[in-house]
Amino acid sequence: MSNIRGRFSKSADKLAAEYTASLAFDQRLYKQDIAGSIAHVKMLAKQSIISDDEAKTIIGGLEAVRGEIEKGKFKFAAEQEDIHMAIEARLIEKIGEAGLKLHTARSRNDQVALDMRLFVKETIATTQKGIRGLQQALLDIAEANKSVAMPGYTHLQAAQPVLLAHHLLAYFEMLQRDYERLSDCLKRADVMPLGSGALAGVAYKLDREFLAKELGFSKISQNSMDAVSDRDFILEYEAAAAICMMHLSRLAEEIVLWSSAEFGFIEIDDAYATGSSIMPQKKNPDVAELARGKTGRVYGNLMALLTTMKGLPLAYNRDMQEDKEGLFDTVDTLLSTLEVFAGIIKTIKVNNGNTCNALGRGYVLATDLADYLVKKGAAFRAAHEIVGKLVKYAVGKGKTLADLDMKEYKKFSPLFGADVRSITIETSLAARNVIGGTAPVQVKKALAGARRIIAKK
Amino acid sequence: MSNIRGRFSKSADKLAAEYTASLAFDQRLYKQDIAGSIAHVKMLAKQSIISDDEAKTIIGGLEAVRGEIEKGKFKFAAEQEDIHMAIEARLIEKIGEAGLKLHTARSRNDQVALDMRLFVKETIATTQKGIRGLQQALLDIAEANKSVAMPGYTHLQAAQPVLLAHHLLAYFEMLQRDYERLSDCLKRADVMPLGSGALAGVAYKLDREFLAKELGFSKISQNSMDAVSDRDFILEYEAAAAICMMHLSRLAEEIVLWSSAEFGFIEIDDAYATGSSIMPQKKNPDVAELARGKTGRVYGNLMALLTTMKGLPLAYNRDMQEDKEGLFDTVDTLLSTLEVFAGIIKTIKVNNGNTCNALGRGYVLATDLADYLVKKGAAFRAAHEIVGKLVKYAVGKGKTLADLDMKEYKKFSPLFGADVRSITIETSLAARNVIGGTAPVQVKKALAGARRIIAKK
Amino acid sequence: MSNIRGRFSKSADKLAAEYTASLAFDQRLYKQDIAGSIAHVKMLAKQSIISDDEAKTIIGGLEAVRGEIEKGKFKFAAEQEDIHMAIEARLIEKIGEAGLKLHTARSRNDQVALDMRLFVKETIATTQKGIRGLQQALLDIAEANKSVAMPGYTHLQAAQPVLLAHHLLAYFEMLQRDYERLSDCLKRADVMPLGSGALAGVAYKLDREFLAKELGFSKISQNSMDAVSDRDFILEYEAAAAICMMHLSRLAEEIVLWSSAEFGFIEIDDAYATGSSIMPQKKNPDVAELARGKTGRVYGNLMALLTTMKGLPLAYNRDMQEDKEGLFDTVDTLLSTLEVFAGIIKTIKVNNGNTCNALGRGYVLATDLADYLVKKGAAFRAAHEIVGKLVKYAVGKGKTLADLDMKEYKKFSPLFGADVRSITIETSLAARNVIGGTAPVQVKKALAGARRIIAKK
Amino acid sequence: MSNIRGRFSKSADKLAAEYTASLAFDQRLYKQDIAGSIAHVKMLAKQSIISDDEAKTIIGGLEAVRGEIEKGKFKFAAEQEDIHMAIEARLIEKIGEAGLKLHTARSRNDQVALDMRLFVKETIATTQKGIRGLQQALLDIAEANKSVAMPGYTHLQAAQPVLLAHHLLAYFEMLQRDYERLSDCLKRADVMPLGSGALAGVAYKLDREFLAKELGFSKISQNSMDAVSDRDFILEYEAAAAICMMHLSRLAEEIVLWSSAEFGFIEIDDAYATGSSIMPQKKNPDVAELARGKTGRVYGNLMALLTTMKGLPLAYNRDMQEDKEGLFDTVDTLLSTLEVFAGIIKTIKVNNGNTCNALGRGYVLATDLADYLVKKGAAFRAAHEIVGKLVKYAVGKGKTLADLDMKEYKKFSPLFGADVRSITIETSLAARNVIGGTAPVQVKKALAGARRIIAKK
Repeated sequence: MSNIRGRFSKSADKLAAEYTASLAFDQRLYKQDIAGSIAHVKMLAKQSIISDDEAKTIIGGLEAVRGEIEKGKFKFAAEQEDIHMAIEARLIEKIGEAGLKLHTARSRNDQVALDMRLFVKETIATTQKGIRGLQQALLDIAEANKSVAMPGYTHLQAAQPVLLAHHLLAYFEMLQRDYERLSDCLKRADVMPLGSGALAGVAYKLDREFLAKELGFSKISQNSMDAVSDRDFILEYEAAAAICMMHLSRLAEEIVLWSSAEFGFIEIDDAYATGSSIMPQKKNPDVAELARGKTGRVYGNLMALLTTMKGLPLAYNRDMQEDKEGLFDTVDTLLSTLEVFAGIIKTIKVNNGNTCNALGRGYVLATDLADYLVKKGAAFRAAHEIVGKLVKYAVGKGKTLADLDMKEYKKFSPLFGADVRSITIETSLAARNVIGGTAPVQVKKALAGARRIIAKK
Repeated sequence: MSNIRGRFSKSADKLAAEYTASLAFDQRLYKQDIAGSIAHVKMLAKQSIISDDEAKTIIGGLEAVRGEIEKGKFKFAAEQEDIHMAIEARLIEKIGEAGLKLHTARSRNDQVALDMRLFVKETIATTQKGIRGLQQALLDIAEANKSVAMPGYTHLQAAQPVLLAHHLLAYFEMLQRDYERLSDCLKRADVMPLGSGALAGVAYKLDREFLAKELGFSKISQNSMDAVSDRDFILEYEAAAAICMMHLSRLAEEIVLWSSAEFGFIEIDDAYATGSSIMPQKKNPDVAELARGKTGRVYGNLMALLTTMKGLPLAYNRDMQEDKEGLFDTVDTLLSTLEVFAGIIKTIKVNNGNTCNALGRGYVLATDLADYLVKKGAAFRAAHEIVGKLVKYAVGKGKTLADLDMKEYKKFSPLFGADVRSITIETSLAARNVIGGTAPVQVKKALAGARRIIAKK
Repeated sequence: MSNIRGRFSKSADKLAAEYTASLAFDQRLYKQDIAGSIAHVKMLAKQSIISDDEAKTIIGGLEAVRGEIEKGKFKFAAEQEDIHMAIEARLIEKIGEAGLKLHTARSRNDQVALDMRLFVKETIATTQKGIRGLQQALLDIAEANKSVAMPGYTHLQAAQPVLLAHHLLAYFEMLQRDYERLSDCLKRADVMPLGSGALAGVAYKLDREFLAKELGFSKISQNSMDAVSDRDFILEYEAAAAICMMHLSRLAEEIVLWSSAEFGFIEIDDAYATGSSIMPQKKNPDVAELARGKTGRVYGNLMALLTTMKGLPLAYNRDMQEDKEGLFDTVDTLLSTLEVFAGIIKTIKVNNGNTCNALGRGYVLATDLADYLVKKGAAFRAAHEIVGKLVKYAVGKGKTLADLDMKEYKKFSPLFGADVRSITIETSLAARNVIGGTAPVQVKKALAGARRIIAKK
Repeated sequence: MSNIRGRFSKSADKLAAEYTASLAFDQRLYKQDIAGSIAHVKMLAKQSIISDDEAKTIIGGLEAVRGEIEKGKFKFAAEQEDIHMAIEARLIEKIGEAGLKLHTARSRNDQVALDMRLFVKETIATTQKGIRGLQQALLDIAEANKSVAMPGYTHLQAAQPVLLAHHLLAYFEMLQRDYERLSDCLKRADVMPLGSGALAGVAYKLDREFLAKELGFSKISQNSMDAVSDRDFILEYEAAAAICMMHLSRLAEEIVLWSSAEFGFIEIDDAYATGSSIMPQKKNPDVAELARGKTGRVYGNLMALLTTMKGLPLAYNRDMQEDKEGLFDTVDTLLSTLEVFAGIIKTIKVNNGNTCNALGRGYVLATDLADYLVKKGAAFRAAHEIVGKLVKYAVGKGKTLADLDMKEYKKFSPLFGADVRSITIETSLAARNVIGGTAPVQVKKALAGARRIIAKK
């Protein structure tokens, strides 16, 4: 609770002070806060609002404070309610009088908006790097197993043969959208709010463009009341993170499924598996499960901030202090999940034998059979109906399609000829030769295209 | 439940059929579905997969079906599980044999992905139009009341004087971000999925670029498994809508506050107010309250789809059918809220007397007093402390700042001179003369800038 | 928008009227509304606030209106904003003057609170019936397959053998908690609000206890402002529904997993399976997938109402009208899911061969081996370590535990004796002979206990 | 990541180990974990599964470990993945061999379920105490201001006069439901899971009833698979907490509104208010705002766990580790909010002058006027219409109802007589003399009733 209490006749209630304090978590913003203050002071001097000497003293002091923090020598005192006050108080302690001028032409409202925007901008870059890391791992494992075929599933039922590389490239695409979504989010984070003051703008001749340049922003905010009460850029990051975690939860689900004995498509490296406290044989995909579970908290953080912002009148309200912990938690969760997934994926062992067996089990060539009839002249719906009956017959007999003899085929349609035997997993794959299809030639192109995308800066 | 049951020995359970049917809500997609089918058929003919005559017959049939639907003559039969099957079945009924070829080289999985993308693309345009309408109303009312000053609030406590127009422009900025966010969302919706088949691509030589052009898409999907299981574009629209509704909930809160007798800043036009079933005097801002309340459902729909998509293995799963109702509800809610708010805002009557009174009530010039001291040589923190004590003294005496005499001022700082009397609401406003500040000259520029933005196509 | 507009000089804007109208969805409450009105009128007459004749006329009129609605002859006119006004207007139309007295000593605020409470009370009963139906189906299928053993999974890795019946009884327990949670929710729904008026209570001598009795409530509300602004009972139902849907989503996930070719533990009856528009062989567990997906909307509805209610000042605000659609959607979703799941479960075919094979695949007896060593004198942690190494050795050799010879066993611990061979799936199951364990004797008792619970009224 | 790695040939990846570690947050459960272990060991000895001497040694060791933790001497080593392993490892370090037996007949799955249940049970009690504290504060302030009248609001428009005490009692009622809801939640938390093992029950003759008694549980779990995968009791606590925070957010909103200059009904004590970094005059209700904002995180935590649990197959999955941090955060948020609100409420200063003025401003007696006409013989709807027109007339003339002369009254209805002048705030209040109404005599009874409720143990 603020030690700015000139107007009050009582000190703050201890509980209330603890309740409102943010220092425990917003100390994470010290770097952004000091960078913002240094730029602010430079500008104040440039505009002759403070003297060059004062500016030099303050900047020196701020750098010294930063040094203290980074060396773990800074005492985060409980009576400082937030990182902004903690730094300013320490500055004044160190440099005296001049420090009292730091906050000229500024309010905590525009100061905290600045810190959060600097933080989100850096975070977007880090997240995009994390995404690239996982995309790289997916491409590597896809390439290393590029001839492995497996059933493609819909409804968790084997549907049609696909290449494992094709399947993995689907995740590449999802991550690519995540990457681009973050680039778009950056546009709205990249707006410099300083100069908005508490809410109305400040009564000093500031050079806001100079501040923007100094701090690496490409735009400045256009309305002071909006600038201090806007948290869209945090919500937008959290929404992008939620969608990205959703993608990762799908990949996690498949890692869990595929490493079950029943599927057996992959083996997770021992370094990424865990044992059981009671069952000695267990090798559990805990990392993937935990990532799937952590999707919940990332969704929850988004919902939390949306709820917090609902119905708030302008401009700043203290409710908004709640923007930080959820964001930090989302960032930490997403970054660590991306990183640990890159590790798992890179070290996965694919079990080609089991994917082959699975291809044999179902009736994954049924669509090809229908397409065969279409090419022989049947209308698609009619062909579909015929093959449906054929499959039902085969299931009843406990046979695969390959087990059926020509007489049996002919019973369902005279269009079936001996060439029906030439339909194989390989021909099926090769036939899906459209852009985005699973034909080996297409997948090869897609891999190359993906490589080009991540090679770009 | 699908009537595609060649493989089954039983008809579907009635309850199960009802449970899985989507016709009741996805009939809303008939236009997109038929447009997609027509483009598909043209392409099939172009690629000689069907004959030109067949194509002509099918297209004629589809257009006739569309006519039936639009004239209310189409019988949406309960046994058709979805709009795709309903249209195809009617087509076959009408044109016979040729109709059986419509579904060649296509699956419901890529078909429904296409329909949803077409729908979202159109919806983004409509939503942006709705945003422009409300922005226009805000600018008009701001301009019409451009000299009205009022307290700017933080923590719902009067903080500093602002122009009403400045306050309203904050909402213009929020809506502008919503607008741009939707433009970014469009990029990811604007991807043509046809040709992805059920999940693996199709075994026909399609011209996917032709399809994209025909249907107005600028890109085609690059991975078939992703294409049929991607609902990011819906989530992204719903997230953008949630943020936009959050903005509107803030505006709604202010309409409710400002039209209370206690604030009394505005009067809602009778056409937008409601009465009470028991209290004859009531004039209630129900529209604004309802909009604030509807924020909940738009958040809920976002959370619903995020939950639904969590942990789904590739590729299509029936869970995804749940993408529709929530989206439709969000679209309808957002569009109607934007439209009705434009109506309310346009017809609001501003009560200048009450905003003036409110400015007199608090100590909204205290910051100016501190800035005055700074300009006389005090350090900001010291000045802040002095004015804090002065305000405490005035509160104790039951006086406003204007009520204090020079002797009283001097008691708190010798820097106070007679010119302290020249600090007024007007000088306070004029002093915030930074870009984005509330100074009349800045607000005028901001209004002009805003006009330019919405004038752009 | 209210046609109660004595105070207004304009009719409502068309858009605003549509925006605020609730008749389209609250007509579902006609029965509750009329029942509430009849009880109210009886009480008014009993208290001599209206005459007995007036009461008789009004009640007759209300019953006639109900008849019209139920026969589909009631015209829900767009200009009536809600079901309450629609019924009252029609009543006045039918019986004239007397109808104008219906709303004496009542407000829409307490009236709608009453209707919703009556609805929730009935809904709790229906939901509990639905739960009982599914519990019954689970018990039947458990009993019918009572000797089937399968791997119990943790982390989707086979862990220890369990009886299928034991596994299914876990869902019985979840549903039992859902049932009891609803009974608790009922306590807070079962409170009669009439007499609270708009917010302050009414200025008539009402007999609220009579009303409660007449309408089947066990308590009356104790504070009028709370009574008209309390929606806890809806939130509590929605939270209970969310937890229940979460349980059903887990069951759905297992139905999907178990009916995959890779697991193959069950076959869904054709009546509950669906085909594909393109792949003739597919037999998809769409109903289970859809139920899993619908979990999203039930969560979303809860989140929506929590958001709507956040931060509302007392007493009634129009935001609260948003309580209805989400509740109705949750109720419809939950009830139909319970019912359709009872159908699926009842008709499932268990494939004993596949559950047996799965038991053979893993090392599900490893824990029993460790327990064996404990019983021979090893400390548990030591035994666990030994068996861990043994399993690692077996995996390396590509052997099952049964494949190992005594010499190999002895290499890992001298405590292993020939009796290690007598550890089987059957002995493993039988050994878990604690209350709640999977030993056949325990499962039999649990089944009997479960039967007793659902036999109770 | 587990150091139980007998089966693995590699140590865990560092990142993966960090990702899965829970020690940083689950150390909070040390007390519950040790209490559970002590009871378990006593039972093992009682059942002769270990010797009495071993039990004594282990219990002594566990108590020593607890001592170390409480004295801050316990080294929480990063390589221990969770609190359970950390304690067991330290135990073994201290007492050697015997320690290896602690985990006999137990799994981390039932162990962690036990710890969480013990934690939730204690938390429910603490939360209920917190609720009682706030209820007490509400009653005290209500009683101290029992004659203060104010406008009751609907739609934030003054509706009818109410007593402030009546208004505050509405919050008493909400909190009372929260209290009872937690009592119901306790029933489902109060179930002892030990003996369930990893998922199938354990292969030892345990006395589970003894364990329940020893640990203060009234029931034991009936299905081992459910017992290790059930987190309903956490969800139910979180849902109850969400509803309670919603109530507090409403109270917070009113504190913010009422302490605005425009309402001016209350003044927050200086000890609970905060200043501004830039505006020296500000006295902000930050505590209330922050509480309102924190509603978001409590909703978010509920949504997070619901999401995490969605679609998980039985039995334990690592996703469930995500149950802890959100719960801890919700508990800390709710408890501190209850406590700090009790402090604010207790010290609030009510400004009777401003509530009086507000009563004068509106037309809060209009309903009484309509009731007056009803008592003179008009039908309610007709009376409502007449008074509506009268108010419209008065608004047009800029008059209050008291300003109108009898001639003006008569113009609207001949039923108006001179006794219409006797309608006052006091008669209006007194007239609402129904149970739950705002009549002073009813409010007095309600206060007494509330006192009785919280006096009960």
